[in-house]
Amino acid sequence: MRKLEELKTGKAKRLYNTDDATVLWVEYLDQATALNGKRKEKIASKGALNNQIDCLLFNYLIQNGIATDFIRQVSATEQLIHPVKMIPLEVVVRNLASGSFQRKFATTYLQPLSRPIVELFYKSDALDDPFINDDQVEVLGLASAAELAAIKQLALKINQLLQSRFAQANLTLVDFKIEVGYLAGQLVLADEISPDSCRLVDQTTQASLDKDVFRKQTGDLTTVYQEVLTRLQNSEVAHVSR
Amino acid sequence: MRKLEELKTGKAKRLYNTDDATVLWVEYLDQATALNGKRKEKIASKGALNNQIDCLLFNYLIQNGIATDFIRQVSATEQLIHPVKMIPLEVVVRNLASGSFQRKFATTYLQPLSRPIVELFYKSDALDDPFINDDQVEVLGLASAAELAAIKQLALKINQLLQSRFAQANLTLVDFKIEVGYLAGQLVLADEISPDSCRLVDQTTQASLDKDVFRKQTGDLTTVYQEVLTRLQNSEVAHVSR
Repeated sequence: MRKLEELKTGKAKRLYNTDDATVLWVEYLDQATALNGKRKEKIASKGALNNQIDCLLFNYLIQNGIATDFIRQVSATEQLIHPVKMIPLEVVVRNLASGSFQRKFATTYLQPLSRPIVELFYKSDALDDPFINDDQVEVLGLASAAELAAIKQLALKINQLLQSRFAQANLTLVDFKIEVGYLAGQLVLADEISPDSCRLVDQTTQASLDKDVFRKQTGDLTTVYQEVLTRLQNSEVAHVSR
Repeated sequence: MRKLEELKTGKAKRLYNTDDATVLWVEYLDQATALNGKRKEKIASKGALNNQIDCLLFNYLIQNGIATDFIRQVSATEQLIHPVKMIPLEVVVRNLASGSFQRKFATTYLQPLSRPIVELFYKSDALDDPFINDDQVEVLGLASAAELAAIKQLALKINQLLQSRFAQANLTLVDFKIEVGYLAGQLVLADEISPDSCRLVDQTTQASLDKDVFRKQTGDLTTVYQEVLTRLQNSEVAHVSR
């Protein structure tokens, strides 16, 4: 497997072609952004932390029957994935009130929701990723009603698995964002799951252990992401040995 | 039936108690607002025009099997209704792209949608009536999944009937907003249907015949609302005589 020319650089990852047309090479970057990319900082070791957390979580989800684009980790900052025909939606699952939900509905921070909910955002830089409902998704041709049902079912299944995995690390999964697409005709989880895309709080102290420390400038991102990785690695051993 | 004390004054209507606890007295006011009430103007005869259009449309919908809170018109500017336990949602149905849909998704003005769509907004002055999805409606306890299904079915049935009625008046129904609630345990159409809450364009010229002429300051509201009323009245006669 050889890394060939760069395909694209996103906010936190760089994508390369390889000599195998069914494989892409992903490099996680030492970069953090907020305010939809308006604030941007270089943060040493962030790429390695996110890549390792993401590989650990994707391996866990695959072991539990979730179809994904993930192949394998190749270095601290790199992994291999399959190319996927992406659906242009950000799929957000919430267990507790935070972020835009909390602001929009003036709820208490971390107020428990009576059940997990799904929110969809239309992935479009030009439109600033607007919040979108199912009818709008359908008439804009982004996904059919049947596809939406499958996407929500997948997102809620992933939520159950992640909640349980994070709980082993004494972490509460407040909410998270995923992206999905088609790989050989099958709906799969794609993109990334990391503290960049999850809200996590300590089960005991409710301290934030995610990108909110960067967004709100309340803590050191590297320290917090390292804590998440260490807790996941330690609880993985505990999990396996049981 | 006697009109008793004032209960509440809204943006365009005043509500009174009557000597019958199952009846409220509504007075349509000569007032127009835009920008969620920030812009407000007194417009002579607007109350009479909207009340007459509303009475005509509610009578038509009732004749076609729609349950509503409407009892009868009592004067040019007044009508009687039943008190309703309102569901705090604004239910918007769209046939063609306009307004917030057009702005949010950068579509062409009046671009036809492949099917009518429903959008829900949480009726809350404090929260500025946010756009809301079904999952959010449910966890906030505003309506259950079964209630939402019934609300959407009612809204789409009303859309069919209104489209056909406006077409008789050479008007295209672009979109409209309704509010619904419970009357003796039954889901009913409540509030108002008028050029304040509908977007209407001439089928031939596509000229606006609704509140957009006030919002965008492109025409005289009274002239336009009078035109809608006259066309509906003339086509009503035509309809009955056929």
